[in-house]
Amino acid sequence: MIAHILSTGDEVLLGDIVDTNSAFLCKALREIGIQVKKITAVGDDVDAISSVIDDISLQADICLVTGGLGPTRDDLTGFACSKAAKDRLELNMTALESMRSYFKKRGFQLTRENEKQALLPSTSTMLINHNGTAPGFYIKINKCLFFFIPGVPSEMELMFKKEIKKVLLYEFKLFNDILIERLTVFGLPESRVGSLLKEFETKFPKMRLGFRADFPVIEVKIIFSNIFKDKEKARSDIAKAKQWVILQLENKVVSEQGMTIAQEVGDLLTKQCKTLAIAESCTGGLISNMVTDVAGSSNYFLFSGITYSNDAKINILKVQKKTIVEYGAVHEQTALEMAQGVRHIADADFAISTTGVAGPGGGTKEKPVGMVCIGIAGSKFSTAKTYRFSFDDRAMNKKIFAMMALELLRRHLVLMAKTP
Amino acid sequence: MIAHILSTGDEVLLGDIVDTNSAFLCKALREIGIQVKKITAVGDDVDAISSVIDDISLQADICLVTGGLGPTRDDLTGFACSKAAKDRLELNMTALESMRSYFKKRGFQLTRENEKQALLPSTSTMLINHNGTAPGFYIKINKCLFFFIPGVPSEMELMFKKEIKKVLLYEFKLFNDILIERLTVFGLPESRVGSLLKEFETKFPKMRLGFRADFPVIEVKIIFSNIFKDKEKARSDIAKAKQWVILQLENKVVSEQGMTIAQEVGDLLTKQCKTLAIAESCTGGLISNMVTDVAGSSNYFLFSGITYSNDAKINILKVQKKTIVEYGAVHEQTALEMAQGVRHIADADFAISTTGVAGPGGGTKEKPVGMVCIGIAGSKFSTAKTYRFSFDDRAMNKKIFAMMALELLRRHLVLMAKTP
Repeated sequence: MIAHILSTGDEVLLGDIVDTNSAFLCKALREIGIQVKKITAVGDDVDAISSVIDDISLQADICLVTGGLGPTRDDLTGFACSKAAKDRLELNMTALESMRSYFKKRGFQLTRENEKQALLPSTSTMLINHNGTAPGFYIKINKCLFFFIPGVPSEMELMFKKEIKKVLLYEFKLFNDILIERLTVFGLPESRVGSLLKEFETKFPKMRLGFRADFPVIEVKIIFSNIFKDKEKARSDIAKAKQWVILQLENKVVSEQGMTIAQEVGDLLTKQCKTLAIAESCTGGLISNMVTDVAGSSNYFLFSGITYSNDAKINILKVQKKTIVEYGAVHEQTALEMAQGVRHIADADFAISTTGVAGPGGGTKEKPVGMVCIGIAGSKFSTAKTYRFSFDDRAMNKKIFAMMALELLRRHLVLMAKTP
Repeated sequence: MIAHILSTGDEVLLGDIVDTNSAFLCKALREIGIQVKKITAVGDDVDAISSVIDDISLQADICLVTGGLGPTRDDLTGFACSKAAKDRLELNMTALESMRSYFKKRGFQLTRENEKQALLPSTSTMLINHNGTAPGFYIKINKCLFFFIPGVPSEMELMFKKEIKKVLLYEFKLFNDILIERLTVFGLPESRVGSLLKEFETKFPKMRLGFRADFPVIEVKIIFSNIFKDKEKARSDIAKAKQWVILQLENKVVSEQGMTIAQEVGDLLTKQCKTLAIAESCTGGLISNMVTDVAGSSNYFLFSGITYSNDAKINILKVQKKTIVEYGAVHEQTALEMAQGVRHIADADFAISTTGVAGPGGGTKEKPVGMVCIGIAGSKFSTAKTYRFSFDDRAMNKKIFAMMALELLRRHLVLMAKTP
């Protein structure tokens, strides 16, 4: 089965928006055994959209089209579809009713602009929008079944999960025949990961590897397709392959389930019934934000002090004034006292801290942009280390500093779990 | 001139990665007057890539191709290009030398895997990679000039800025003939924005509007193309259009320069020489992270206390125990005391605070998921308000709570600037 995705909207081609919808849909389709072969993006232009729909209708069996169903004048996908399908648009009463009830629930009145959204090709079937006003629809054009979906991510996602998936499973009698294992790797460049795993295909010829670099993390995927016949054997084969991969990667696998470092840290803290406090300077709240993105983090995360000013470091975290005067804010001694201080005031089991130079300004020869001191404190120990990274970019530095701090804590927690 | 983008890589079609490269390149091309007409994405498959290159070579004048130049076995774009161009790959000595020096600078040795990256089509010209190992190259195939660029965003961006842009400006004698004004809107749904601006095209027929919803913000763009002849007149026309748009949008324009709320708040604090402290509960560090993403924020941001536990609220921010016992953590009185407390301990001019229920769990009938209390404190006033949003998603709630808190501060700072 050949699947395509068509993404419409000037905002994509102007570069004003990143097309996260296509990534979501590729992943969601893969989960029900459909591999997307091509993604195309064109602007809000009736002729361009209908011409691509024409092409796809002869090449693919399924196509998901996103965007252009909204109430504004640049929303033209419905017209383009009716042109390609040689079908007329008509007011779909089910669509209108569903929009009315959506608005009523929220205490709004339907506007003329919104009514336009209920004009659907006459041979199409409506798809309910559970999270917004623009209804979707599906329609067969030549050999291809097209699904037209709103471009707003939250609306698109829910429409896929609640409506489109059902239609696909029913129409194409699908089952899932792919196994994927994910490993999160932190601390190796992509070329090194590739070279450490170069024997993989010889050792495990039925599987293949995929790599995804999402700075500063690399996700390694082990993909085992077409395993429909013997699922149990496949599961045991892929488990062996996974153990081999972990062994090659020099202790740089931070999650054997493809989780984030923050999720791994959260899991370890929960299992060990320990609590966490954080003191951040240069990372400015990013570590705390990563930690609290994990649902349930309130079970172990107590407090974080984002101390940008020296006064805040001294008065709130109780870093000694002498330390700052003698060594400066960016120093291992400062990081150490920050971690110890925040652990004490929050009464936490563990604490981590960062102080460094994220850039773009503020670097000196001795303390250049990219340098960070990370502290870690517990009841029986505390330590701080300096790391230097070679990026000039503020956002990249904040990210790698934050990851490094969480990784040091993760390693410590893993060690604790192993020590009786 | 017709420009296309081709994005290669299984990770895109598996949905494991969001194609941010294409968005960057669309924007970068637009800035030198080139509008992208189509984006295509295909997997790591030599035949699929070379067949799309074939098609594009007959349709477009310029094509930027990203991905598949790395050292691993799934990097196949070089082969696919040589196939489409009917050219052979040969070891490019300039490329090899540039890689050697990149490695030497960082104290690494060139590996065999990396050497593969110096195999380029014989009729191509190398492009230096300033931020990584894989060299790029450009080559004419049929009527189209193709640029092959690594897929790692930081490498791609620098190669575009430092290498490709020069070649394009020279080869195509380009100039910029487009004016764009951006406005950031917060607090109106997209359909409402569209309906408030429906007279735009009648009033300003030479311009057009673009909308981009990036939850929970909508960016409105006023686009004036083909203004090459009279740039001064065009500038004054678009300024008038902008004022009209601002007037229609009911005080919901948070930046007249398309900046983020955090940048606007930073600007206002800098101009008024005021400092900021933050107390976050449910937003978990997101506000602080947004504030410190702005370069130079250390000039006004002093301290932030992320108090997830009640003890931290009481002991560190000096919220009264009685308040928590009587009203609970999610309450206006708690938010108020958090803001006052953090302002006091950080000795800041202003403070904002959040306490609420981000979800997915933890909601009750009285305090449901999506409810947040926001406090704001200054030397002459302090206040707190409750807001309810209808999202179930933790990340969405954190985001809209954080934006709302910054927006309240922004409005207050604007008011202060107007009061003598």
